[in-house]
Amino acid sequence: MASNSSSSSDDNAPVRVGILGCGHVGSALIELLGERARAIETASGVRLEAGAVAVRSISKDRGIELDESLLTTDAEAVVADPSIDVVVEVIGGIEPARSLVLAALKSGKPVVTANKELLASVGSELYAAAEANGVDLLFEAAAAGAIPIIRPLRESLLAEDVRSIIGIVNGTTNYILTRMAEDGATYADALGEAQRLGYAERDPTADVEGFDAGAKTAIMASIAFGANVVAGDVYREGISTITSKDIESAERFGYVIKLLAIASVFDAGTDEEEIGVRVYPAMVPVSHPLASVRDSFNAVFVEGAASGELMFYGRGAGGQPTASAVLGDLVDAASNLQRGAFRPVPSGPRPSIRAIDDLESAYFLNITVGDSPGVLSEVAGVFAENGISIRAMQQDDTPESEASVAFITHQGRESDIQATLSRLKEHDAVKSINSVIRVIES
Amino acid sequence: MASNSSSSSDDNAPVRVGILGCGHVGSALIELLGERARAIETASGVRLEAGAVAVRSISKDRGIELDESLLTTDAEAVVADPSIDVVVEVIGGIEPARSLVLAALKSGKPVVTANKELLASVGSELYAAAEANGVDLLFEAAAAGAIPIIRPLRESLLAEDVRSIIGIVNGTTNYILTRMAEDGATYADALGEAQRLGYAERDPTADVEGFDAGAKTAIMASIAFGANVVAGDVYREGISTITSKDIESAERFGYVIKLLAIASVFDAGTDEEEIGVRVYPAMVPVSHPLASVRDSFNAVFVEGAASGELMFYGRGAGGQPTASAVLGDLVDAASNLQRGAFRPVPSGPRPSIRAIDDLESAYFLNITVGDSPGVLSEVAGVFAENGISIRAMQQDDTPESEASVAFITHQGRESDIQATLSRLKEHDAVKSINSVIRVIES
Repeated sequence: MASNSSSSSDDNAPVRVGILGCGHVGSALIELLGERARAIETASGVRLEAGAVAVRSISKDRGIELDESLLTTDAEAVVADPSIDVVVEVIGGIEPARSLVLAALKSGKPVVTANKELLASVGSELYAAAEANGVDLLFEAAAAGAIPIIRPLRESLLAEDVRSIIGIVNGTTNYILTRMAEDGATYADALGEAQRLGYAERDPTADVEGFDAGAKTAIMASIAFGANVVAGDVYREGISTITSKDIESAERFGYVIKLLAIASVFDAGTDEEEIGVRVYPAMVPVSHPLASVRDSFNAVFVEGAASGELMFYGRGAGGQPTASAVLGDLVDAASNLQRGAFRPVPSGPRPSIRAIDDLESAYFLNITVGDSPGVLSEVAGVFAENGISIRAMQQDDTPESEASVAFITHQGRESDIQATLSRLKEHDAVKSINSVIRVIES
Repeated sequence: MASNSSSSSDDNAPVRVGILGCGHVGSALIELLGERARAIETASGVRLEAGAVAVRSISKDRGIELDESLLTTDAEAVVADPSIDVVVEVIGGIEPARSLVLAALKSGKPVVTANKELLASVGSELYAAAEANGVDLLFEAAAAGAIPIIRPLRESLLAEDVRSIIGIVNGTTNYILTRMAEDGATYADALGEAQRLGYAERDPTADVEGFDAGAKTAIMASIAFGANVVAGDVYREGISTITSKDIESAERFGYVIKLLAIASVFDAGTDEEEIGVRVYPAMVPVSHPLASVRDSFNAVFVEGAASGELMFYGRGAGGQPTASAVLGDLVDAASNLQRGAFRPVPSGPRPSIRAIDDLESAYFLNITVGDSPGVLSEVAGVFAENGISIRAMQQDDTPESEASVAFITHQGRESDIQATLSRLKEHDAVKSINSVIRVIES
C-alpha cells in the first residue's frame, strides 16, 4: 500500500546480508527477513536478501526454515565475501565480534549490531572506523531491544540539550521486582520464577548485579552526550540485596523499587561538563511514568531542556523484538548504502566522569535503634551534622526494646550520606542499618 | 563534546533557514536556534542560521531577541529567495501554507512543517512533490509535538508490520479528563480551568470534539500503513458528553476515560487490507500504559507483529517542545541537503477505509430501567438477540421505582451495538440510555 521510492525498480539489485551468529536473535531475524522482504521493498525500494549465515555448528536445529547452503562456520569468509553488502553481528561478546565488525567496516560494508558488551567497551574504536570508511554502524537493538531509543537520540534529539536519561533497561530485574511488589514474592522466589520462564539465566549475575544495564547506560550516555562513555565508567549496584520489607516500605511511602540506569550531564564551570553514569535500585514515585513499567517491559525516560520529559517504552529483549530493531537498522543501512550516504555516530572524546561520591540523590534508610527516650533526636542529629536533611520519618512495629525507623532524606551528596552511615554504625543507640536505597523525586 | 562529522570544517557554509510564521512555535524556534547552533554544528557538522522570518505584522512584540532586518511580511519572497536553503512552515491552516510549501519543494528546498491540518488534508500532494523534487518534507511536530513518533514510524519501524496505533494526542482533552478523574471536577469546570491555563482555546471545538486528534490520526495512519489517509476518513466523537458519573463508573470497573486516536489495519482477504481510523473517548484499563498518561501529556501506543507493544510519551504541544521537534527535523533536512540525500515519505494510494459500523469494540453502557422483576433478564435478552454478549454488570443505588444498570460488553460490531441501542430505546422497561462509551481491553 506504500509508494515506491524513487530508487525502486524491477531490476533493483538485492542487498545481500551476511549474518554473523544464529541464536535467538539471528534466527528470528532470518524468519522476519523472509516474511517482510516484499513489504520492505514496497516501502523503501530496498530488496534485502540473506546471503550467508555464520554459525558455530552447521547441524544444530534452529527451528526455522533456512536454506542450508547459506550456512558456514567461517565468519571471516562471510565478512570478506564480495557478494555480501551488509553485515549483521549477533554473536555477542568482544572477540571475535570486534575483529569481524572492524573488518567489515574497513572493507566499506555497513554493520548492524545488537552487541551491547562490544559497544560499551570498544564502541569508540568502532564508531571511528565506521566514520573513517564512510559507512553506517547501527545498533538500535543494543540499548533497549525493540524500543527505538538510539535513533531518536541520534536524530530526533540531536539538536536537543538532553540533560538526563533514566532507564529501566533490564527486563529480568524488572520482572523480579514486579513479582516481589505485586505478588509479595521473595527475591529468591521471583528469581526462580524468572529462571523457569527463561527471563533469567542460570547464572543471573549479569542481569541482577546490573552489568547488562551498565553496558546499556554507557551506550546511551555516549550517544546522548556525544562522549565516549564505557561500561567501566558506570557505578553499579544490583538488586540482590532488595528485601520484601524494602518493597513494603517503598509502597508505604508511595514508591515502587526499580533497577535504574541513569546518565546525567552536569555543568562544571565555563564550557566544562561532567557526566554521571550509574545503575542502582531506586524508589520511584508511583506517579512517575517509569513506575508503571511492569514485568519484563523496559522504558527509557529522557529529559531535554526544550522537549521536556519524553519516555520510550516497549520490549527490551526477546528474539522477535530484538530482530525487529535489527531489521529496522538493516533497511536503513542498505538504503544509505545504495545512495552512498551514511550518518556518523555522535560520540566523542573521553568525558570527565563525576564520581559517585560527588553525585546527589535522596535516600531511603531503614535502621534499628534502641527504644529509649531521646534516641530519635540523637539519630536525627547525626544526619544534620553531615549536612543531610530528613524529609519523612516513620517508626515501625518492632519488639519492645528496639524500634525500626524509616527515613527519607532530601537530596544529598553520596559522600555525605556515606559519612552519615559511618557515624550511625558507630553510634551506641543504633543496633543495625537494614536498608539504604536511593530515591528518585518526581 | 561530540565528534565532528566528516562534513564539518571551519569554512563550512551555513544552511540558511526561512521561517514562515512567528507565533509561539516560530519564536521558540528562533530562540532555540540561537542557543543550540554551536552544539548542533559540533554534533552534526551542520551550521544553521535564521535567514528570514515571514510574519503578518513587523511591529508586534514577540518577547524574543530578533534581528529585525530578518522580518518581512512577504512569505512568497522568503520561499523564492535564492539565499534561503530550507523552509520551516509554522503558519498553520491550509492556504497560504499549501502554496508556500509546494513552491519551496518545487524549487528544491526541503521543508519542515508542524502543520497537522495541512498534512491531514493535502499531505499526499505534498509528499509527492517532495519525492518528485528529491527533497525532504519532514513533520515530526505535526503528530505529537515533541514526541518522536513520525521518525520511528518512517525509519525504525519501516520494516515492522504495524497492526495498530492508539494515541492520546490532544493535551487539552487529556488535561480536562485528568482533572475530572483526579479532582472530581465537572466537564465545564475542567474546561474552564484548561482555558484559564491557556491549554484550551476560547472556542475549544477543535480540541474537545476531536478534530485536532483526527488530523493527527490521519497523519500517523498514512505513515504507519503506507496509505493516503485524510482527516475526513476519521470517525470522530468528542468528550463534551462525558459526565462525572461516567468517570466514576469507569473507576469502579477499573478504567480511566481517555480521548483516543486509533488507527488499525485489518486483513480483508488475499493481499487486501482495510484501515480503520477513529477518535473517541474510551475506557482504558488502569493497568494499560496509556492509563498513566496524565494532565496535558501525550502518548502513542504502537503494536507491531514482531516488536510487540511500544509506547512513546511526552509533551504533545507548547512552543518549546514543538520547536524542539522542528529543530530536530531541521538538522536532518539540512544535513541531507548537504549530502544530496533525501528520504521519501512512506505514504501511498487511497486505502479502503473500514466504516465505523464494521469496526469492533467492547462497550460500557449505563441505562435506567423500571425496577420490576424480570426486567434485567429482558434487557439482557435484547443484547443477546443482537449478538452482543455481556462481560460485566452492576446495579447502582437509585430511587425505588427504577434502577440504573451499568454493563460492559465483550467485543462486538458497532452496527450490532447500534441495533441493540435502538431496540433498548423502544423497550417498555427502559427509561433512558444514559451513557455509551467504548472500552479498550488490555
